[in-house]
Amino acid sequence: MSYVLYYSPGAASMAVHWMLIEMGVPFEARLVDIDAGQQRDPDYLRLNPAGRVPTLIVDGVARHESTALLMLLAERHPDAALAPAPSSADRAAWLEWMIYLANTLLPAMRDWFYADSDGDAAGADAVRALARRRIEQACERLDAHCSEGHAYLVGGKLSTADLLAVMLMRWTRNMPRPATNGWPHLASYIRRLRALPSFIELNAREKLTEWVNEKE
Amino acid sequence: MSYVLYYSPGAASMAVHWMLIEMGVPFEARLVDIDAGQQRDPDYLRLNPAGRVPTLIVDGVARHESTALLMLLAERHPDAALAPAPSSADRAAWLEWMIYLANTLLPAMRDWFYADSDGDAAGADAVRALARRRIEQACERLDAHCSEGHAYLVGGKLSTADLLAVMLMRWTRNMPRPATNGWPHLASYIRRLRALPSFIELNAREKLTEWVNEKE
Repeated sequence: MSYVLYYSPGAASMAVHWMLIEMGVPFEARLVDIDAGQQRDPDYLRLNPAGRVPTLIVDGVARHESTALLMLLAERHPDAALAPAPSSADRAAWLEWMIYLANTLLPAMRDWFYADSDGDAAGADAVRALARRRIEQACERLDAHCSEGHAYLVGGKLSTADLLAVMLMRWTRNMPRPATNGWPHLASYIRRLRALPSFIELNAREKLTEWVNEKE
Repeated sequence: MSYVLYYSPGAASMAVHWMLIEMGVPFEARLVDIDAGQQRDPDYLRLNPAGRVPTLIVDGVARHESTALLMLLAERHPDAALAPAPSSADRAAWLEWMIYLANTLLPAMRDWFYADSDGDAAGADAVRALARRRIEQACERLDAHCSEGHAYLVGGKLSTADLLAVMLMRWTRNMPRPATNGWPHLASYIRRLRALPSFIELNAREKLTEWVNEKE
C-alpha cells in the first residue's frame, strides 16, 4: 500500500500529510506550487478537476476531499488507530466531530479566504463577516469541549478529528481573533497537538515556520 | 438496536428518516414542530444544544449531524448495504461523495435559507448570491456524473449518498433554478429515486405532498 500525495504547504492537504507521517506508511509527496498556478496545469486538472489540493493517489486512482481522505486512511490502516474502531463506543462521536468540522468550519474557512474569487467581489465583505462569526462560534465550541478535560476531541486519544481541527485552527492565525487568543482551553489543546513529533516533522517537510510552539 | 429520531418534515432529518424506513429497522419518530419553536424547548436543547434536527438517540445517547448519522447507521447495519463495505473498491468514492455533499452543498443550502438569521440581514443578499452559485455548480456536477450512465452516485446501487443528495435536491424546489429544471440527467436521477417505495412512504409519514413524482 503506497500513496502519492499532491500537496501545497499549509493548505487543506496538510491534515492528510500529517496523518501519513504520523502513521509512518510509505508515501511520496509531490508539491503543487499554488503561487505558480500549478493547480491549473492540465496534468493536475486531470487528477483534480476542481484544481484544489489535496489529491491522494490510492491504488492508482486520484481521490479528493481532505475529510474523506482522513476517513479512508483510517479505515485502510486500522493498526494506526487514528479513528475509534467501528462498533466502538467512541465511533459515533468521532463521526460527528469529523462531519461538524467538515460541514461547518471548513466551508466557513473557504468563505473567509475565497469570498472574492468564489463569489462577487462586491459581496465579499458580507460573506467574510458571516464566515468570521461561524469560525469564532466553532472556536467557542472547541474551547468548551476542551474545558471539560478532554485532551483530544474523541476518546482521550489522538484521532483524525484532531488532525483536521488543528489544521483548521492554524488557518485562523492571521484572522482578527486567532484560535490561540482568548480561548484558553483551545489554546492549550493546540499547544499539546503542535508538540507532537509528527507535527514538527510535517512543518519541516512543508517548510513552514509560522504557528509552531516556541522552543522551551 | 432501536432508535428514536427527532425530525421535522422536510428538514435535514429527512435523509436519516428515509434511511431508517429503507432499512426496515425499528425506530420511533418524534416530531419537532419547528413552526411552534419546539427546537428551542429546554428539553430538546438538552438533546441538541444547537436546536436543530435531526437528533438520533443511539444506545441512549443523542447524536447529531445528518451526514454523520447516515454513515453511523450504514456501519451499524451492514446487511442493509447502504454503503460500500470498507475495503471494497467503491468505498473511497462513497466517502468522497458523502463529504462533498456535506461540506459543499449542505453549507450552501444553510446559507441560502438562513443567511438572515445566521448573519447580518444587511449582508444576506450577498451570502445568498454565493450560495446560489455554489448550489448550481453542485447540480452541474451531479448532472455530469449522472450523464455518464450512473443510475446512482456510487457503485451502481442505492447508498446513503443518494439519500443525502436527493434530500438536498428537494430543497432547491423553490429556488430560482430547481434541480429538476435544466439538468436533464439529474432530473431523471431524481425521478428514479423518488419512485422508491421508501421515499413514497417517507413523504406519507412526514405528510409532505410537494416534490413527488406525478402519478402515472
